[in-house]
Amino acid sequence: MEGELKPMDAEQLRECAHKMVDFIADYYKNIENFPVLSQVQPGYLRELLPDSAPSRPEPLQDVLDDVQEKIFPGVTHWQSPEYFAYFPSNSSVAGFLGEMLSAGINMVGFSWITSPAATELEMIVLDWLAKALKLPDEFLSTGQGGGVIQGTASEAVLVVLLAARDKVLRRVGRDAIGKLVVYSSDQTHSALQKACKIGGIHPENCRVLKTDSSTEYALSPELLSEAISQDVASGSIPFFLCATVGTTSSTAVDPLPALGKIANSNGLWFHVDAAYAGSACICLEFRHYIDGVEEADSFNMNAHKWFLTNFDCSALWVKERSALIQSLSTNPEFLKNKASQDNMVVDYKDWQIPLGRRFRSLKLWMVLRLYGLENLRAYIRNHIELARKFEELIKLDQRFEVVAPRNFSLVCFRLLPTQNDVECANRLNRKLLDAVNSTGELFISHTVLSDKYVLRFAVGAPLTEERHVVAAWKMIQEKASALLMNS
Amino acid sequence: MEGELKPMDAEQLRECAHKMVDFIADYYKNIENFPVLSQVQPGYLRELLPDSAPSRPEPLQDVLDDVQEKIFPGVTHWQSPEYFAYFPSNSSVAGFLGEMLSAGINMVGFSWITSPAATELEMIVLDWLAKALKLPDEFLSTGQGGGVIQGTASEAVLVVLLAARDKVLRRVGRDAIGKLVVYSSDQTHSALQKACKIGGIHPENCRVLKTDSSTEYALSPELLSEAISQDVASGSIPFFLCATVGTTSSTAVDPLPALGKIANSNGLWFHVDAAYAGSACICLEFRHYIDGVEEADSFNMNAHKWFLTNFDCSALWVKERSALIQSLSTNPEFLKNKASQDNMVVDYKDWQIPLGRRFRSLKLWMVLRLYGLENLRAYIRNHIELARKFEELIKLDQRFEVVAPRNFSLVCFRLLPTQNDVECANRLNRKLLDAVNSTGELFISHTVLSDKYVLRFAVGAPLTEERHVVAAWKMIQEKASALLMNS
Repeated sequence: MEGELKPMDAEQLRECAHKMVDFIADYYKNIENFPVLSQVQPGYLRELLPDSAPSRPEPLQDVLDDVQEKIFPGVTHWQSPEYFAYFPSNSSVAGFLGEMLSAGINMVGFSWITSPAATELEMIVLDWLAKALKLPDEFLSTGQGGGVIQGTASEAVLVVLLAARDKVLRRVGRDAIGKLVVYSSDQTHSALQKACKIGGIHPENCRVLKTDSSTEYALSPELLSEAISQDVASGSIPFFLCATVGTTSSTAVDPLPALGKIANSNGLWFHVDAAYAGSACICLEFRHYIDGVEEADSFNMNAHKWFLTNFDCSALWVKERSALIQSLSTNPEFLKNKASQDNMVVDYKDWQIPLGRRFRSLKLWMVLRLYGLENLRAYIRNHIELARKFEELIKLDQRFEVVAPRNFSLVCFRLLPTQNDVECANRLNRKLLDAVNSTGELFISHTVLSDKYVLRFAVGAPLTEERHVVAAWKMIQEKASALLMNS
Repeated sequence: MEGELKPMDAEQLRECAHKMVDFIADYYKNIENFPVLSQVQPGYLRELLPDSAPSRPEPLQDVLDDVQEKIFPGVTHWQSPEYFAYFPSNSSVAGFLGEMLSAGINMVGFSWITSPAATELEMIVLDWLAKALKLPDEFLSTGQGGGVIQGTASEAVLVVLLAARDKVLRRVGRDAIGKLVVYSSDQTHSALQKACKIGGIHPENCRVLKTDSSTEYALSPELLSEAISQDVASGSIPFFLCATVGTTSSTAVDPLPALGKIANSNGLWFHVDAAYAGSACICLEFRHYIDGVEEADSFNMNAHKWFLTNFDCSALWVKERSALIQSLSTNPEFLKNKASQDNMVVDYKDWQIPLGRRFRSLKLWMVLRLYGLENLRAYIRNHIELARKFEELIKLDQRFEVVAPRNFSLVCFRLLPTQNDVECANRLNRKLLDAVNSTGELFISHTVLSDKYVLRFAVGAPLTEERHVVAAWKMIQEKASALLMNS
């Protein structure tokens, strides 16, 4: 490249970005050569980089070399086919292209006027996705509701909690905030607890209802009813229920129809968190998992998990967008414009925490168009089938047990203890996790269910094939054998 | 391309992404041919797109054609050299490359372990930037404080407000939340008001202190002192002060040293919002604008505004990271890991609202390295010089006045009324704004200062050159002449 890099120049951008494309394509070509879970020690990078920013420009090649030599060793490779931890966070060709385009246009779509296409494409694409999920019409943007892309499921549950909080406080008076009660199961994502802290809901008013294997870790409608009755009797004000379809620990499915009825008859805002499992519900045979969503006030699924849309893209639908807007709108003079003042448009700034927002609908639109719903269904089915095979392999080895039902593409399992000692079993499985992950050859994570330390194997990376699942199982078996021999 | 697009395939990614690079480079090559402000009508896009997602994949070329024909007309081109509205939102070659790489790696860096490099590079690069801004050492990650990348300044002020709220409530008891008082000027960004709503601070406890031209729209320390004294006398609890360096309406600069002393002697959390103007403070001659930042508890500047880092990248520094963590941490079993449990690492999930986070430090690192601080300073100085020239042009035309001092690269001006009638003048300037923006040849925005409707001309797009500023002024003059002739 001739001369120094300009702040922006079409031809310099072309030249450098082509170089970056090859760098990233090569990354994917070689991704199996990296340890999946980074094996660096805390503080490793500070020793490798200078103390302050350079005064003079450095060549792109130097930066790319540093990425290769200094950054990549510190990356945990979520896109590796051997990544089975937490939940997946899909990158795809289409999702990546959408991110590129969004970064290229680089507009800030807080109000309709700041790029009408960004707002309108988001409305349209979330309608598309709502239809693919067969969500009730009230969630479509053509009525009183609509969809919006949040950054994460945490932000999704926060904004609806705030909408619900303010709705009830308008009725009972804001000094009653200390009486507001939130309901969920002990399997609900910690994002709810965080949202409550942020919104000033008192921690002891968060009813974390106990689950166990008798309901397959799903929230019991009877427990919920009882809790609400007790709270009402004691003068508290129940106002929010969060149900989960596909809990983080074990993909448990809360019974939406029964829970929804209770929520509605008690005037609770009913939020359904299907952050991970929502993607599967585009397949007819899995759609029943969200039966009952008709009763919900809001529904959330993360396209950035298992739907080939690069992070971040969390799709939230509400039936009553005015509740969100009443809680979250601001209208400073410097943002006023005719379209907004005349109420002719949606201004997504009033549906979210931040003001600014990226053009995230582009990537979801490109995923839906470049793959098409049929291929997306096949993609999901393939992962579920791979998880089923992994589960079968476990069942063939009597040293192991499957701890919770496999509903989607997550398998919860553990190595059985030699004696019937919970603590001993937990230690054993913790050691097994460490042994497996420290090889760098695969990455799995853990949880605790009914005091049992459990290993989680989540299939869902776009590059994962049957051979990776089989090899992973073989490695887990080997490490288990070694551990049992030495214990 | 042979066959259908796979979810992820290195060679398909290479081929498609090269195509996308050329598409985006061509966009920048032709960016002056688009109307800067989109001229579409509300609802335009729904008529152009199908009602539902396709079942079968569509070719990339079809999508690119649709972007060109259907999306671009609805885009307001923030990267156009004729964009002078709001504040800039810089895209750059380096920032774009960083976004590409981040989307390519597509990891979710909530905890250190999920990609140590993401956390560590963020700590290092924010230390670099803190040093370039000559922030006090307490803001460096090597002590009790540190920097973190938030999505926006709204999230930055929210997280520190929550930290400050919870800190004082731990002392006075949470039932005193109705007594907590927040201070700012009437020029403070609406993000503070929104943060207060979210955090449950009562709206009537938000002291919005009046400013006027006598202080050049800066917050008066005397007014602040009086307000605090009154509140203390009436039993309220002052706890948070937000000062601004470079307000949104007119880039007013609140006097940090005096305000900081008052905040500290009264035990208030002192937040400094330099979202826009912070970038200028890497230049020695502008650094004095943040003199007094030593008194602040937190400091925020948006690298995504005027620092060549693609949206989003809002840099927040705090002196006491434990306050953030106490408010925002969660520790569910499924995220536990040795490095976190042993307190050996930073887990940025506990410094922000969402759980998941992108690898945003890559783009800031690339901006700092590929341009270097000297060129970044020259970049800022050039925009300030262009704004100064625009201001001079205004002063040569007696039909106009400059309404507020130009501190950085924003010029606030208006067409003077023919009679001394405020309403008439406001109508005239509103018409001038519409006339100018509806040409599509440039985009400026407005505000209101002391009841005067004021036009804002913010220089800061990476492609803006002197010729664009001169042409913009000529166009504004022409539209003014036409308006005056017809009025």
